[in-house]
Amino acid sequence: MNNLGIVKRNITRADRTAVEQLSHFGVATIHEAMGRVGLLKPYIRPIYTSAALCGTAVTVLLQPGDNWMMHVAAEQIQPGDVVVAACTTDNEDGFFGDLLATSFKARGAVGLVIDGGVRDVKDLTAMNFPVFSRAIHAKGTIKATLGSVNIPVVCAGAQVNPGDVVVADIDGVVVVPAASAQKVADAARAREANEGDKRAIFASGVLGLDYYKMREGLEKAGLRYVD
Amino acid sequence: MNNLGIVKRNITRADRTAVEQLSHFGVATIHEAMGRVGLLKPYIRPIYTSAALCGTAVTVLLQPGDNWMMHVAAEQIQPGDVVVAACTTDNEDGFFGDLLATSFKARGAVGLVIDGGVRDVKDLTAMNFPVFSRAIHAKGTIKATLGSVNIPVVCAGAQVNPGDVVVADIDGVVVVPAASAQKVADAARAREANEGDKRAIFASGVLGLDYYKMREGLEKAGLRYVD
Amino acid sequence: MNNLGIVKRNITRADRTAVEQLSHFGVATIHEAMGRVGLLKPYIRPIYTSAALCGTAVTVLLQPGDNWMMHVAAEQIQPGDVVVAACTTDNEDGFFGDLLATSFKARGAVGLVIDGGVRDVKDLTAMNFPVFSRAIHAKGTIKATLGSVNIPVVCAGAQVNPGDVVVADIDGVVVVPAASAQKVADAARAREANEGDKRAIFASGVLGLDYYKMREGLEKAGLRYVD
Amino acid sequence: MNNLGIVKRNITRADRTAVEQLSHFGVATIHEAMGRVGLLKPYIRPIYTSAALCGTAVTVLLQPGDNWMMHVAAEQIQPGDVVVAACTTDNEDGFFGDLLATSFKARGAVGLVIDGGVRDVKDLTAMNFPVFSRAIHAKGTIKATLGSVNIPVVCAGAQVNPGDVVVADIDGVVVVPAASAQKVADAARAREANEGDKRAIFASGVLGLDYYKMREGLEKAGLRYVD
Amino acid sequence: MNNLGIVKRNITRADRTAVEQLSHFGVATIHEAMGRVGLLKPYIRPIYTSAALCGTAVTVLLQPGDNWMMHVAAEQIQPGDVVVAACTTDNEDGFFGDLLATSFKARGAVGLVIDGGVRDVKDLTAMNFPVFSRAIHAKGTIKATLGSVNIPVVCAGAQVNPGDVVVADIDGVVVVPAASAQKVADAARAREANEGDKRAIFASGVLGLDYYKMREGLEKAGLRYVD
Amino acid sequence: MNNLGIVKRNITRADRTAVEQLSHFGVATIHEAMGRVGLLKPYIRPIYTSAALCGTAVTVLLQPGDNWMMHVAAEQIQPGDVVVAACTTDNEDGFFGDLLATSFKARGAVGLVIDGGVRDVKDLTAMNFPVFSRAIHAKGTIKATLGSVNIPVVCAGAQVNPGDVVVADIDGVVVVPAASAQKVADAARAREANEGDKRAIFASGVLGLDYYKMREGLEKAGLRYVD
Repeated sequence: MNNLGIVKRNITRADRTAVEQLSHFGVATIHEAMGRVGLLKPYIRPIYTSAALCGTAVTVLLQPGDNWMMHVAAEQIQPGDVVVAACTTDNEDGFFGDLLATSFKARGAVGLVIDGGVRDVKDLTAMNFPVFSRAIHAKGTIKATLGSVNIPVVCAGAQVNPGDVVVADIDGVVVVPAASAQKVADAARAREANEGDKRAIFASGVLGLDYYKMREGLEKAGLRYVD
Repeated sequence: MNNLGIVKRNITRADRTAVEQLSHFGVATIHEAMGRVGLLKPYIRPIYTSAALCGTAVTVLLQPGDNWMMHVAAEQIQPGDVVVAACTTDNEDGFFGDLLATSFKARGAVGLVIDGGVRDVKDLTAMNFPVFSRAIHAKGTIKATLGSVNIPVVCAGAQVNPGDVVVADIDGVVVVPAASAQKVADAARAREANEGDKRAIFASGVLGLDYYKMREGLEKAGLRYVD
Repeated sequence: MNNLGIVKRNITRADRTAVEQLSHFGVATIHEAMGRVGLLKPYIRPIYTSAALCGTAVTVLLQPGDNWMMHVAAEQIQPGDVVVAACTTDNEDGFFGDLLATSFKARGAVGLVIDGGVRDVKDLTAMNFPVFSRAIHAKGTIKATLGSVNIPVVCAGAQVNPGDVVVADIDGVVVVPAASAQKVADAARAREANEGDKRAIFASGVLGLDYYKMREGLEKAGLRYVD
Repeated sequence: MNNLGIVKRNITRADRTAVEQLSHFGVATIHEAMGRVGLLKPYIRPIYTSAALCGTAVTVLLQPGDNWMMHVAAEQIQPGDVVVAACTTDNEDGFFGDLLATSFKARGAVGLVIDGGVRDVKDLTAMNFPVFSRAIHAKGTIKATLGSVNIPVVCAGAQVNPGDVVVADIDGVVVVPAASAQKVADAARAREANEGDKRAIFASGVLGLDYYKMREGLEKAGLRYVD
Repeated sequence: MNNLGIVKRNITRADRTAVEQLSHFGVATIHEAMGRVGLLKPYIRPIYTSAALCGTAVTVLLQPGDNWMMHVAAEQIQPGDVVVAACTTDNEDGFFGDLLATSFKARGAVGLVIDGGVRDVKDLTAMNFPVFSRAIHAKGTIKATLGSVNIPVVCAGAQVNPGDVVVADIDGVVVVPAASAQKVADAARAREANEGDKRAIFASGVLGLDYYKMREGLEKAGLRYVD
Repeated sequence: MNNLGIVKRNITRADRTAVEQLSHFGVATIHEAMGRVGLLKPYIRPIYTSAALCGTAVTVLLQPGDNWMMHVAAEQIQPGDVVVAACTTDNEDGFFGDLLATSFKARGAVGLVIDGGVRDVKDLTAMNFPVFSRAIHAKGTIKATLGSVNIPVVCAGAQVNPGDVVVADIDGVVVVPAASAQKVADAARAREANEGDKRAIFASGVLGLDYYKMREGLEKAGLRYVD
């Protein structure tokens, strides 16, 4: 009836080539390429400015004040994975620190996204292990209650399935469903090519009003210029 | 690639008998019967104290400041449905008021759960139309951008699929997957029978420490009584 | 250079007839009649469910933890006025209680809107003195620093000028510039007449999709119905 | 080194007579009588409008998502006590419901103040068991980690020692140190007598400006009246 | 009746010399020089630590999730302007990114203050284009509803008129009315001269208690020193 | 009856040797060594990334919008002290800037922890004076109302007594009671030695599941591995 206490070992990860391609784009570009969906809420922030990651999701459902499942998740990590941790309730305790980061890194993880708190931020920064979290908090956790690993979770307002592609940078975190990874990568590439042109055009002084041909629409909507 | 701009007409609603059975239990009981999952975040509150509902979900994904999809959703309502409205971003505008409520009611809707704002609260209360919302806000909305109807949504931190059972009362809102409705109803019934007995026992002065046999566990955990 | 320490005695209040007319409409209706502007932020809530008011603004700019200016404002109140209190910084202290309410009422005030805290809520409710506030908080305040009375203020995100019409009910608080009061009252009346018809139509089962002729626009925008 | 895992059985409760006297005053009055200290933060709200309590504190320190200590606390309750529950971290789970309320009531408790969530609010209201909480949330809790009972705690920003007097009503919650209970009761009585007179005076139209002789101070501070 | 859908082309910008002078002072100094008013709420933060700006306001009123008016505003920018964007409701979508920044810069804008979200923060930082915002969020926006340009707006709690001077640094954002710019610049200069002396004095160990002659006032207020 | 308006001159500071020893450990380590208590809430953040401090507390209780007591506190500072400032209500005004920092530094203070706002952040950073605050805000304060110095305070949810050891770094702020300083330093040392070993072990690929022997406990709790 419920899916607590479960670890799914075999998950279908997004295609490696598509993941690699997605790693070249920013979060905003990928979000646009998906049709403006897939973002986590903006309260998830990088613990250091240059943090960025792109990988396939190993999901974790935590209980408040308890990081037992982070240890269970470690074993399920494969090279190129990002751990995505949700919690059954709002909680900012420090579920993750330098020891777990060392363990995750040893397994090949490329980062962590967590709707909770983390600690040992100085060490994590020195390790260059990218973490996107809800809070920084030294509060320790226990190991007493089961959650799950590799079930679908809701993390900071976004549905994440194990194997989905997770991309994060200073603009936020976006989730690309595994099955759409290649299509989104293609759309992102098309969009980015297009952007490059635009930047030069706008730098030359051309206005978006003219470039995007907005004047007629604005007039129709009733915009009035007054002096 | 994305599922914006879609209205799914045929959805599989949870079994009517199970829904009817679930309507007899409180949100806390159902949440426990599900293994302590399925709750929306507690910022979703009833607009009047006695508001309560139980029905099958018609889901809506809204755009900020835009209630166009609420009108599209109205047509998909069948008697006994609850409209569950999510938004692509945090927004507290008044997406819903007495006219939409009249329309929803005419279609047989039994209430609304919305991760956004509502208005005309005096009228909604007089109509006895139960609404659970993120905010009360008179702010009007436009009708300009497509969202979707009857796709899976994340509403206030919970995944809701069209056809799922949604139960709400003063304690909050819980979502029961359509496929588990009967099992959860059975578990809730078992749990409630059990609670009735307990209340009399505790009223007589028996302590939970003794009734639940907690003393040994507490001692083992190291609890010390001092004077 | 600044306008702290000022009490403006002569202010131009909105036309009494227009104010009276506005008192018959809800906040949502007036907000719509104004073209969807003029609302205070939704964190301003009534201290009791049935609280409602309509009157002309006497404005106050408070300092944090200091209600000296509330006493200065009392003297400027004329029958039919609403005191609108802003603060130079976010503060939830209890700037107002039953004694000030008694004083305000004796001067003819019809209510208070305050971007701060209030106390003696049981008494205020018994007096049926409508208050819309940011918080309920017993915290006492001092009388040490000058603010101002009857200067333009920003209260909960809205610009309020002395003499403006302030209307508040369970849906929120709206400010109508004094000069527009009659026009807004007229527009509100037109709108409300219109709403009455609509309610009967929607109750009969007509959909907003048809009544507002939305189907073509939705199709053009690309809405797809799937099974 | 730390005081987790401790239950103090013998605590010095405030004098019964003083407690009884304090029960006649509102929270705002007592807070003023104490010199404007002792309040909990205003996010602690009654679960029903008429909830009010006055009693001696049995304190509890909870762990997030864990209500084990509430059961331990039940045994320490004596008639006239109020349970005051703090948590080692911010957490809104439903630590308390109708069964614990039944147990607390059987022991003579007069209410609960909790910096966390509660559930079964309909039942608690029907039982007329006053609860002041941070949230209403159906989320269930576990019984796995030790906190403490009857140690000094910080609850919603206020220091509470076991045996202190806790008074709560719609204006908030105030804590009176046990040793000061009689002095505060006396000061509250003096203050209240004084208030009664004032209300009649202000109702007659006398201004606070004159009654409190504020005009000279305002002028000295530089207040300017303009037209 | 309302001022949506308006673009005012001719605005009176603050005197250039005064603006230049104000650019030499910090936000705290200017705020003090104005008599402690004019600040935006502190949730507006720079997107990178060294961001700072001083210029004349081109104001924009946005609709939630819609950045159409940002393009309209671009055309109204003159060299030395700061775009100040408010929204009709609380919204954290990414209204602004590197392309608009390129366009704004081409027109001579010296920065952006926005009560909303922005994205492309890495690019904006590389461009050294100072932005002060409510949030960083990759969420894209549409172009469908009219707001206004160069009308008075309330941005993060402060009234801003087109042409006002806006100064921002790591301490926050302050608005100087155009008509007061020179007076405020003079007052700021006087204040800063004064501060320079003070720093050396305090560094030498002189206490504020003595320098500001506070001891008598404190004693009069009743301060007691105990051992 | 209350302890406002008091300055305690003689306080018992924690043993210097213990303080020096504690300065070598991170906040998370010390919090764990204390049994997972003692942390301030995580909304207290450093004003620059590398800020860190360890010293003995001089406590201050401020009134909202008033920094008079900061000047009184300055005189009580001895070399090695950290000023810990609480407020009688939530307030984010800029109570502290470069002049007070200069004064504090001249007295030997090693930093500030404040449940309020600060300003002149650029200067404070240049001075390398570590500050941990609730907000950055340019808002100026007055000097009108008494608080206290060196009384027990609640700062950001933690009880702080004068003389306690306060340690802060990027992970947060922890308070060690003066009497426990040496014991906590010893426990922290033991813990840290232990951590060093662990990091190498986890880097080699050993899992926490095995190292901490969690597999049996997880199985007993009912964890199921599925494919």
